[in-house]
This record gives sequence, C-alpha cells and structure tokens, in this order.
Amino acid sequence: MKNRERPIGIFDSGLGGLTVFKELRALLPGEDLVYFGDTARVPYGTKSPEAVLAFSKEITAYLLEKKIKFLIVACNTASSLALEEIRGLSPVPVLGVIEPGVEAALKAVPAGGRVLVTGTSATVNSRAYSRALAAAGPGIKVAEKACPLFVPLVEEGWCARPAAAIAAREYLAPFRGKADVLILGCTHYPLLKKVIARVMGPRTRIVDSALAAARAALAQLSGLGLLNPARRGSSEFIVSDAPARFSELAYKLLRIRTGKVAVKRF
Amino acid sequence: MKNRERPIGIFDSGLGGLTVFKELRALLPGEDLVYFGDTARVPYGTKSPEAVLAFSKEITAYLLEKKIKFLIVACNTASSLALEEIRGLSPVPVLGVIEPGVEAALKAVPAGGRVLVTGTSATVNSRAYSRALAAAGPGIKVAEKACPLFVPLVEEGWCARPAAAIAAREYLAPFRGKADVLILGCTHYPLLKKVIARVMGPRTRIVDSALAAARAALAQLSGLGLLNPARRGSSEFIVSDAPARFSELAYKLLRIRTGKVAVKRF
Repeated sequence: MKNRERPIGIFDSGLGGLTVFKELRALLPGEDLVYFGDTARVPYGTKSPEAVLAFSKEITAYLLEKKIKFLIVACNTASSLALEEIRGLSPVPVLGVIEPGVEAALKAVPAGGRVLVTGTSATVNSRAYSRALAAAGPGIKVAEKACPLFVPLVEEGWCARPAAAIAAREYLAPFRGKADVLILGCTHYPLLKKVIARVMGPRTRIVDSALAAARAALAQLSGLGLLNPARRGSSEFIVSDAPARFSELAYKLLRIRTGKVAVKRF
Repeated sequence: MKNRERPIGIFDSGLGGLTVFKELRALLPGEDLVYFGDTARVPYGTKSPEAVLAFSKEITAYLLEKKIKFLIVACNTASSLALEEIRGLSPVPVLGVIEPGVEAALKAVPAGGRVLVTGTSATVNSRAYSRALAAAGPGIKVAEKACPLFVPLVEEGWCARPAAAIAAREYLAPFRGKADVLILGCTHYPLLKKVIARVMGPRTRIVDSALAAARAALAQLSGLGLLNPARRGSSEFIVSDAPARFSELAYKLLRIRTGKVAVKRF
C-alpha cells in the first residue's frame, strides 16, 4: 500500500473529536479515517497531566498499529499536555488542535487585541494556549476561562436547552464586550457556539479549533504529498467502552452515521 | 490484629461516596476507614456494565489487600451492576447502597404509593432499584429517572447556583406532586437535596441512600460483633488520579479535611 493510501488516525477522550472528524470528512472526502474515542476514561479535562499523558500514549501506539499515515490529536486536553511526547513516539506526522486554533485566532484578532481562551480545567491549567499566543503574537492580551460543565452539557444533548445558556452566562458574562476573539478550545464546544456567541455579544469573533485543525490537516497532507486521490474514503470508529451510546450520540449531536462501532479496551 | 480492629473499606467512582464516608465517620467514630475514589475513570454512570464491573473488581481486590473487615460499595452504579460479583470475590461482608435505600424508601412510602428513583444512566438502565422495590414492596408504583448532569454539577461545586435549579426542573418537574418518596439513588445527589426538594414540592419525602447505607453498616457490624471499641479511628484516602483536586473538593463540598491523599493507579 502506498503511503498516501493509508488511513488518517484521529483520537479524542470521547466524542468531542467528532467535530474535527466531521470537518475532515467534508474537506477530505477521499481519505480513510480511523477515529478512536476513549469513552472508558472520558472526560480527560478534569484529570491529571500524568493520566492524560499515559492514556494518550496508549492510544497513539494502538493507532500506529493500524498503519496510519498521519495522526490528529483531536482533543485539546491531550494536545495541551501530551503533544510533544506523542510526537516523540510517532514515526508519522502528528497534528494537535492548539496550533491551528492559535493561528486562526491570530488572523482574527487586531493588533494589541484581546483573546479569551475557553477550555477544560486541564487545558486552561496547562496554559498551552497562553504560551503559544504569547510566542506568536506579542502584545496580544490573553485570558483563559475553564468551563467544566460544557462537556457534560453537550454529552447530555442539551446544547439548546436553558441549562446551557445559564451555564454559559455563569462562565462568560464577565467577559462580555471584553474579548475581540474567543477560542473554542475544546472539541465539544463548537456544539455550544450559538449560546456562547449570545453571551459574548456580536463584537467577539468565535474561533473554532475543530475547523481550524481540519484545515491545517488538509494543508499539511497536501504539502507532504500525502493526499489520497481516491474519490470516496472509508470511516472507522473504535471506542474503549459503550459503542451503542457513542453511535447514538454521534447521530443525535452531529448527524454522523457511524455504522458499527468497534471496541478496544485497555 | 483482631478482626474488629481492622479497617472498613469504602469505594466510589470519585468523590460522591464521601457522603457515605461522612455519615459513617459520624456514626462510627472509632472505626478506621479506608476510602478509595476511582478519579482516573470517573464517572461510572455513563459507562457500560462490563467496564463498571471490571473497575469494581480491581478496586475490591486492592482494598482486600488492606485487610479490611467490611466493604461498602458507596456507589450506586457499581452497587447496581457489580454487587453480586464483588460478593463472590470477597471473603468479608459487602454492603451496597441499593438495599439500604430501598429499605428506607419502603418505610417512608404509604401502601400502594409511588416511588421515584433518581440516579445515573447506568443505575437507571440496570433497573436495580425497580426490581428490589418490586420484590420487597408489592403494589408500590415505581418510576425511574436518570439525571446525568447532577454529578458534573456537584463536581463543579454548583449545588446552589441557578444551573442546578434549572437542571433539576428539566429532569424532575414532570414528577412534581406525583411521588410520595424520591430516592437519591446516587451518592452525589444528597448535595443537591435542597434544589431537588424544591422542584418536587413538600409532599414528597426525600430518601438519602448515603445516610441509609451508613446506618445499615452500623447495624451489620454490630450484628457481626465487628464494631471497633476504639475511641477515635483513622481516615485514609486513596484515589487513582488527581489527589489535590480530590482533597480540595472534599473540603469545598463536604467540609472533609482529607490530609494527604495517596495515589494508586491501575
């Protein structure tokens, strides 16, 4: 098999990374995609750096056995805490979601402007976004805000219910009118984009790290000559627990029809 | 060491079981208590029966190595899905939280009355409460309602915030005035007792499975001659991840001072 015909591996703590999967599927219809969701250990966002690192390494080794040509860490928490170690393990290129999100934010923010990063507790505590923004865009003011309830709200399918709006207000009302750009620094958060935008007001641009990551993957694969010329690629889904629930939520939240979902336990 | 001087083991998926710990500590001041919280894999309530069973067996084996005299499964999900298997593994008596909750509900409900069981998705899907109530109290009408956001709300420390009241209304308003007894079928839920009671109205009695389990433990230990005559027992806390966060939340939510929390990874 030629390198360019090999699949792309994608992983997340659960189903949030499906927002990246969905953008990728649309941008790269010819690619074979293998998605792994660590549903036995979800969420990662409240766990320690050591645990997230150990889980990420296990999953990387498993996806490498599948002869992938490219790996996307479609989880902000794992990208914040484990990207360098994953790159050290992987003979194939590895893309995280932080760098594409930062690049997209830098394009959207005015000079000396203000960026608000939203994410899980682990992502915010890692300060990965602040560091990357400070390095790439000196003079930009960065605030970070952890929003731990957003992931469970999405997983409950309550994106359009009053509880989501109330939670968004609790977390974000103090920042209303005080950010030029808000980064959705968790792959679940694009599903709450509307309620978040409503709290922030019309002057804040929302940057979606899932979409930015999918675009970055396209650019990198193209630059490496690794794009698959096929007309239609396959999609494979593997989880570490509860495949039926994963399949049901993938359809309910994102209208993704997974077909049969395989199980790999660690 | 005499049998009665050995510690009592308690485990939960995370920190919810601390509601049981707190009641036990008050009822049994002389006992040595060893608490294990599986914070690397919390929550259990959205995971499969196979995963919950595997995790529960690992933790039971670990606590048995500590020479416990009695084991309390202070997690409704694990009690629903794994109690028989845990009893099969354990040479010491094992108490779950379902049976004590059912007994307390039966005392509170009138003949032919209505019981509403609240819990995680896994607990509700197991129908463990419905089966136990039907067996022990024929003629009682039972409804079950999964409230998956209650655990993350508690873990966020938002028990008294508007989001908790809104979530309680979403889940429980259809049952207002339609239950004589509501069982808090998850050890996190006693922390939301006030908002739950407000939605249900004054005619519904709230049964706390944590308190019921602690009282059942006292009765069983006494019956077995296993009560420790010491004046003051020790408390030991072990988690599978993020000990500092556990310690912080134990104090924030329940005013429990854990001291140093040890880590055991699986």
